[in-house]
Amino acid sequence: MSRRTLKELSWDECFAMLGQGTVGRFVYADDLGPAAVPVNYAVAGQNIVFRSQDGSKVRGLRGHRVAFEVDHVDDTSRSGWSVLVRGTGEEVEMERVPELLRRINDDVPLPWKEGIHKIWVVITPKTVTGRRLADMTVEGFI
Amino acid sequence: MSRRTLKELSWDECFAMLGQGTVGRFVYADDLGPAAVPVNYAVAGQNIVFRSQDGSKVRGLRGHRVAFEVDHVDDTSRSGWSVLVRGTGEEVEMERVPELLRRINDDVPLPWKEGIHKIWVVITPKTVTGRRLADMTVEGFI
Repeated sequence: MSRRTLKELSWDECFAMLGQGTVGRFVYADDLGPAAVPVNYAVAGQNIVFRSQDGSKVRGLRGHRVAFEVDHVDDTSRSGWSVLVRGTGEEVEMERVPELLRRINDDVPLPWKEGIHKIWVVITPKTVTGRRLADMTVEGFI
Repeated sequence: MSRRTLKELSWDECFAMLGQGTVGRFVYADDLGPAAVPVNYAVAGQNIVFRSQDGSKVRGLRGHRVAFEVDHVDDTSRSGWSVLVRGTGEEVEMERVPELLRRINDDVPLPWKEGIHKIWVVITPKTVTGRRLADMTVEGFI
């Protein structure tokens, strides 16, 4: 018998967890199928934002469906949480979005250096789901 | 200027890193687009394997394109690595694959409890890519 306790997180609880993290996985699909890469992210209002290199694989999003995943698993206590944001992604030229810049600078002191990556990816969520598990086997996540 | 050092990992180096992990993200696509969920995994030969619940979202894979992502990021030292396996996923009934069971039991002592999840998902890689970063900003991952 499983002793794990699984709790579904609300939208607000999910964003509270997202606010704790600094590294998440950008999830996208290209000609080879779905893929995920870790990125350093920030939360701006209800958006997930991160910087991207010119010419990277996330170019050309233009409203495509993407996802963003953040989790924390403690192997010792066998507990953890995960949040999955599903929505659309868009590239934004930093210079064109003073409003976004202002929101992020107000909310989140970014660890990123200036001037390396000019393109920002902004994810607008459609669904946000999350789970918290305690005293569990991690298999319970799905 | 960036001080980060980025090294592409070979197939064998990627599998060495995969062998160190216990939790990764299963990346798939459904009607809502791409998504990722953390799972407790094992490596069996060149395959990634994990257990799944009956009726979970990963049912009905049957050779669909999927991915599997594992990373480790140390915020303090600003270093880390990530590996992305891209390939196909298949559900396998445990009872039908004594050979797979034998390989896994020989290779990897599984932390999972017996009898909870009867379905196994087996990912067969087509591409395996990875990066190791040192003294970096995590933005460099993509």
